[in-house]
Amino acid sequence: MRESEIIELFLRHLKRQGDLPLGDDAGAIRFGKAWLVATNDMLVRRTDVPDIMTPEQAGFKAVTMNVSDVSAMGARPIGFLFSLGIPGDLDAEYLEGIARGIEKALEFYEVPVLSADTNEADDLIIDGIALGITETLLTRSGAKLGDLVCVTGDLGRALAGYLVWKNELDLSKRVKKKLYEKFLEPKARVREGLALSKVASSAIDVSDGLAKELHLLAGMSGVGIEVYPEKLPVGEGVKEVAELLGLDPVELVIASGEEFELVFTVKPELVEGLGIEFSVIGRVVEGNGVYFVSNKDRKPLLPLGWEHLSRQKVYNGIF
Amino acid sequence: MRESEIIELFLRHLKRQGDLPLGDDAGAIRFGKAWLVATNDMLVRRTDVPDIMTPEQAGFKAVTMNVSDVSAMGARPIGFLFSLGIPGDLDAEYLEGIARGIEKALEFYEVPVLSADTNEADDLIIDGIALGITETLLTRSGAKLGDLVCVTGDLGRALAGYLVWKNELDLSKRVKKKLYEKFLEPKARVREGLALSKVASSAIDVSDGLAKELHLLAGMSGVGIEVYPEKLPVGEGVKEVAELLGLDPVELVIASGEEFELVFTVKPELVEGLGIEFSVIGRVVEGNGVYFVSNKDRKPLLPLGWEHLSRQKVYNGIF
Repeated sequence: MRESEIIELFLRHLKRQGDLPLGDDAGAIRFGKAWLVATNDMLVRRTDVPDIMTPEQAGFKAVTMNVSDVSAMGARPIGFLFSLGIPGDLDAEYLEGIARGIEKALEFYEVPVLSADTNEADDLIIDGIALGITETLLTRSGAKLGDLVCVTGDLGRALAGYLVWKNELDLSKRVKKKLYEKFLEPKARVREGLALSKVASSAIDVSDGLAKELHLLAGMSGVGIEVYPEKLPVGEGVKEVAELLGLDPVELVIASGEEFELVFTVKPELVEGLGIEFSVIGRVVEGNGVYFVSNKDRKPLLPLGWEHLSRQKVYNGIF
Repeated sequence: MRESEIIELFLRHLKRQGDLPLGDDAGAIRFGKAWLVATNDMLVRRTDVPDIMTPEQAGFKAVTMNVSDVSAMGARPIGFLFSLGIPGDLDAEYLEGIARGIEKALEFYEVPVLSADTNEADDLIIDGIALGITETLLTRSGAKLGDLVCVTGDLGRALAGYLVWKNELDLSKRVKKKLYEKFLEPKARVREGLALSKVASSAIDVSDGLAKELHLLAGMSGVGIEVYPEKLPVGEGVKEVAELLGLDPVELVIASGEEFELVFTVKPELVEGLGIEFSVIGRVVEGNGVYFVSNKDRKPLLPLGWEHLSRQKVYNGIF
């Protein structure tokens, strides 16, 4: 079964949902005047932890993945929980590394750990859970006609870094460092999520790639999205990698997952003075779907991303 | 590494904790005048789901395990989340069963699902998370000298049911049904947890066996506990199973895990009118440790339980 079929199966059965229906970056329930936001995301060593990643980085990433979802809801992270699945033959040193990585991330995001659970399992698994709190909930379904479409930071380095490692590409130390930083030690956009909470109309974090996230935003908001490819913030080193592999850098930018940048929509008049680093990459239009537009043409952008279960390699000859 | 060593390793590293230190049934943070309680518990098919258990029962149990921890804190469960690890060859019918079981439990406990995540993994894993809310937090560390020690419902049927299945014991249909009900479809004591929230001085749920839970209560409260073995509420059918296996029923009662009954301590004058079904099994005394006391003697009760990682069979000749 594909991941999408599994999700569909569960959505069919799970009728009792929170104050925000399933399908956003995180769930939410009303809590007096505030919203309590809760999310969970499982990291499986075999599929999510490349050999090059240290246990510290894996532990840190398990926190980042979840804090990022809380940030995409405009919420302040207030707690982290985790369950570990541990193979019988995992050595203590590796486990120590994971513990150090989790603690490092808790310090970085200033979040306490509330609960932890360990179990024996066939593969190393870190299931992280983050809780957050916000007065204004940022969802995937609030994009409005005329809004600008924006993204924090830059894109493409996570996938480019992966490809450098996978294909053992030869690059300068400086460029490689920039790519690996994002591929192996991505950070969640906590400050940005808080800043956007009161002004953005919708948001989503880039976990499965920009193209896929834009389709989710458009679909759940019932609008169309036009993207200007020349405005996309291409990360440092992404062009070099694309060149070496005979790809268009834009392919890497839109398919790169686990970037943990925030894509958001905002009224043009509210975009000034946000106090965060971002790029305007498009706008919300009537209709549906996502389009690449230039002076010459307007062509559909397919919802490409990183499907865990099908293991399609998204960058392989889809364009 | 043993589970206790792994926990010790993580406790050494995780310095940033919530308003209640790690080590209770659930974590907690202050939330205005209330406490937000959060807990997580992972169910791994290979170790936690016997063949005889249907996928519906496994799904239900993944919710129960977590709701029980929230109840042990005296909190009202307000939300459930889960992450699934799914092997590539798991069939859709089994997954449907799990989804039905989770939904059935959500209805039973009147709790909404807030977030769900699916991943590919080597073994079927359901990592459940429950959130709860309470004005008065019930912890493991509040037992006071002179308190009565009590337990809800009855004990022993979960382990007895397991042994019936494991050893293919021949028992009447009625007795087998009673044992399997607890072994395969245990329920969390939500109403009891709420009732205890304002009167009990401490509480813990029976997930690793009574003996182990009593040691945790005594240790974390800095007190001793005396138990009257003849007062233990032996579940229906437990005596028959003990007899068939040449064991003392009390062994089954104190070592039986995943009972999800609540053990609690309470001032003698507050024990009337609780409106729940429970037994007084002992009292809190000076000193430390847990003891079995009768008219004739007082002997230490060892902290025996169900250690996931060491796979010791607790009922094997420890007495």
